[in-house]
Amino acid sequence: MRIDLNSDMGESYGRYTLGEDAEVMRYVTSINVACGWHAGDPAVMRQTVAAAKAAGVRVGAHPSYPDHLGFGRREMALTRQEARDYTLYQIGALHAFVTAQGIRLQHVKAHGAFYNVAVRDREIALGIAEAMAEFDPRLIMVGLPDSELLRAAREVGLRRAREGFADRAYNENGTLVSRSLPGAVIHDAEVVVARVLAMVQGKVTAVTGKVIPITVETVCLHGDTPGVAALARKVREALEAAAVQVVHLESLVG
Amino acid sequence: MRIDLNSDMGESYGRYTLGEDAEVMRYVTSINVACGWHAGDPAVMRQTVAAAKAAGVRVGAHPSYPDHLGFGRREMALTRQEARDYTLYQIGALHAFVTAQGIRLQHVKAHGAFYNVAVRDREIALGIAEAMAEFDPRLIMVGLPDSELLRAAREVGLRRAREGFADRAYNENGTLVSRSLPGAVIHDAEVVVARVLAMVQGKVTAVTGKVIPITVETVCLHGDTPGVAALARKVREALEAAAVQVVHLESLVG
Amino acid sequence: MRIDLNSDMGESYGRYTLGEDAEVMRYVTSINVACGWHAGDPAVMRQTVAAAKAAGVRVGAHPSYPDHLGFGRREMALTRQEARDYTLYQIGALHAFVTAQGIRLQHVKAHGAFYNVAVRDREIALGIAEAMAEFDPRLIMVGLPDSELLRAAREVGLRRAREGFADRAYNENGTLVSRSLPGAVIHDAEVVVARVLAMVQGKVTAVTGKVIPITVETVCLHGDTPGVAALARKVREALEAAAVQVVHLESLVG
Amino acid sequence: MRIDLNSDMGESYGRYTLGEDAEVMRYVTSINVACGWHAGDPAVMRQTVAAAKAAGVRVGAHPSYPDHLGFGRREMALTRQEARDYTLYQIGALHAFVTAQGIRLQHVKAHGAFYNVAVRDREIALGIAEAMAEFDPRLIMVGLPDSELLRAAREVGLRRAREGFADRAYNENGTLVSRSLPGAVIHDAEVVVARVLAMVQGKVTAVTGKVIPITVETVCLHGDTPGVAALARKVREALEAAAVQVVHLESLVG
Repeated sequence: MRIDLNSDMGESYGRYTLGEDAEVMRYVTSINVACGWHAGDPAVMRQTVAAAKAAGVRVGAHPSYPDHLGFGRREMALTRQEARDYTLYQIGALHAFVTAQGIRLQHVKAHGAFYNVAVRDREIALGIAEAMAEFDPRLIMVGLPDSELLRAAREVGLRRAREGFADRAYNENGTLVSRSLPGAVIHDAEVVVARVLAMVQGKVTAVTGKVIPITVETVCLHGDTPGVAALARKVREALEAAAVQVVHLESLVG
Repeated sequence: MRIDLNSDMGESYGRYTLGEDAEVMRYVTSINVACGWHAGDPAVMRQTVAAAKAAGVRVGAHPSYPDHLGFGRREMALTRQEARDYTLYQIGALHAFVTAQGIRLQHVKAHGAFYNVAVRDREIALGIAEAMAEFDPRLIMVGLPDSELLRAAREVGLRRAREGFADRAYNENGTLVSRSLPGAVIHDAEVVVARVLAMVQGKVTAVTGKVIPITVETVCLHGDTPGVAALARKVREALEAAAVQVVHLESLVG
Repeated sequence: MRIDLNSDMGESYGRYTLGEDAEVMRYVTSINVACGWHAGDPAVMRQTVAAAKAAGVRVGAHPSYPDHLGFGRREMALTRQEARDYTLYQIGALHAFVTAQGIRLQHVKAHGAFYNVAVRDREIALGIAEAMAEFDPRLIMVGLPDSELLRAAREVGLRRAREGFADRAYNENGTLVSRSLPGAVIHDAEVVVARVLAMVQGKVTAVTGKVIPITVETVCLHGDTPGVAALARKVREALEAAAVQVVHLESLVG
Repeated sequence: MRIDLNSDMGESYGRYTLGEDAEVMRYVTSINVACGWHAGDPAVMRQTVAAAKAAGVRVGAHPSYPDHLGFGRREMALTRQEARDYTLYQIGALHAFVTAQGIRLQHVKAHGAFYNVAVRDREIALGIAEAMAEFDPRLIMVGLPDSELLRAAREVGLRRAREGFADRAYNENGTLVSRSLPGAVIHDAEVVVARVLAMVQGKVTAVTGKVIPITVETVCLHGDTPGVAALARKVREALEAAAVQVVHLESLVG
């Protein structure tokens, strides 16, 4: 059994610090780095990519809507072409810092509302996928299983990684329970750890109590959750205790 | 005799249109494309780079201070590290659009006040040069002859191109007359054309009337000057009539 | 018969010029001034308000989504509280320039997608209305007849002005034909003039050909339409030839 | 003996939290509220002003350069007119939230590099002062004693408050020791408290050890210093123990 652990990072900005990146970097294998549109800035991008290289962690881009004030968490009505242009810009900006460190960009994971919309909207998903394909066809698309994001990635010929959310409740059909509903986010670290172990074994308990099948190559630990570093350590230790190999995404998606 | 003609392009933004890019593209050999910080946006960058490819024109990045409101024309007190990080970000963003078109980035020319400061400030010049070197050591630095920009480029091992300004008055020491002084900008197209021809032959008439020596590989035609397209055509025709080869920068700097 | 003519103005920004404000200012009675979020900047706001004062034209605020790149024309998922806070900020910023000129703010008209959403979304409409009421209860809300915007304004006790669009096609139920459909925008100046005259008389021909009743206190002439100044002149002359008084909004809404 | 204590507040932004505003609000009498250009946003402005009203603390505007990425701490080359327009915009935006709470704007204190430049640059100082005078001639200008800021305020007829910095070292001529020099910032809380008490009595020990005279109506406690709340409490308690009245700025400047 093998799994990748990913976390959003590089979400500090200017005078503002967010997250526990240095700590979390010790327990995950892939990070999604903010590209300056919802968070991050050139200085933070340089530092985050350098830290990832030092830690042997793989780097992906975390492109967002142009909504800094809303941290990329509000839906915006973009066209497919806008989604494509905005994604390409952000991938390119991060890629420069990755190149400066002598490493490679592994994947792309859309951020916040951009991700959520692309899960269900074929046009936005295709915009993101097309930007990836035209920049570097070896990039891996990270997305919810059975989503438009992954369908778009397949359509344009990209490698794909299915993602599970350790701290989010699932509906019986495999979608996430909306954050606006009670119980959508799981705060109990023990429960989160148990869910990661279950996901690795191909199952997750839906919000209804029913155990549903799920297949994921990577599990997300939210980078701006308070206590994320302690949680990441527990998850990593539990996985290793269960003889699960925690490996880079790239080794899992061929 | 050979020369490169360069012009700033891609300075439209969102709802706003600026310049006569499509026309000017027919007469120049290299363009400096705005990267979204003083002007330009992802859609404009895509269109500008695609048009350059179609026209056989070489593409360079035109990075700026983070001053959209001031169009990058106001000096800001940056550190060398900030200049480096900001340049790297912008080069990377443009590079993505260049890569998507299957072409290469030829050069970097700092924009506006960023250029003017880097001409005289070794720290800012080094920040720009270091970003170029760490991203792609084959990039050409475009700058005023005998400037800190070109010294920094040599210091980090980059190729360099000396730039003349067809529509700007020169002091006897080869620096540009400040825009705040009368006569700093030359508006008479015939005079501009004559000055380009003189520059190609290694000389320019200073504001004092004295003819001074100047050696340049590229001459700049300002992209947002009204009537720039007509001017570019006249310059190009005059050069060809004088049997001057107008060629890409890359073929001039080895 | 009396009517107010309004137009969006102050949509230039930094290095970019948009619209024919100086000309149009001669023919309208009220202007909606951009507040820096979709267009405009402090310098443009000062100049626009000063010009309005000189022309005897009344000034209103034209608040927008925080979407400069998209010129405020893309829907965003805001909460009522966000709509309220954003509106209050923008009204306040413009009010400072109005105060500096020694005049008063007459009205508020939401811009672009913010307007369109507020026409149908009670929560957003209430956010806008509440910001107006808490800042200055004498402000007039401008909105589509029978819209949530005007219902919200009535609910919080604001004066209201119903607005007609001279160059937009109407559905039989009085709503505007979506811009994404053919024929949504009317380009023929003679037709536009005739429609304004009809609106003043309480009727407009819907896209189906049926004449429907409409009651408006103000008619909008789009400020960024090419040729808007010539159109504004024709409309004004036609109204005066028909003995329609073109007056400030304030004198129409009591 | 009487003194006002001021602190910068409302410097959180979107997803980012900064400062210990709720705590510090208990010990100061005037706050300088960020207006969205270097920090703050409409939601933060509303909350900060509402909290100030609840605490009985007076509110001032804290306008900045347009440099969000640099937190307003980098010098920019503005013209006097730009300084005036930018200040007016920001005062107006904050004033709207103040008006919505039914209170009044007491003062204006420029932020960061904008303040530092205006201390020595007559043109920038005049731009700020003129914006205040044209918006509300009762606003109080807060600035370093014997600075261009206060001279400009006097020139345009504004009330003025001289400001001391409790945690900053002074040169013998009464200017602040540059932050780039060692010892510029004083971290020892006991020393800071002692200096405030001395300032109230009209003296401060310069970095050379010499005691110099200083007259101030307000003392600044930096809002983003770690531990500022505990420091503010100590300063307030020490002042009250010394029978110094801590009062609003307005009651000190007539």
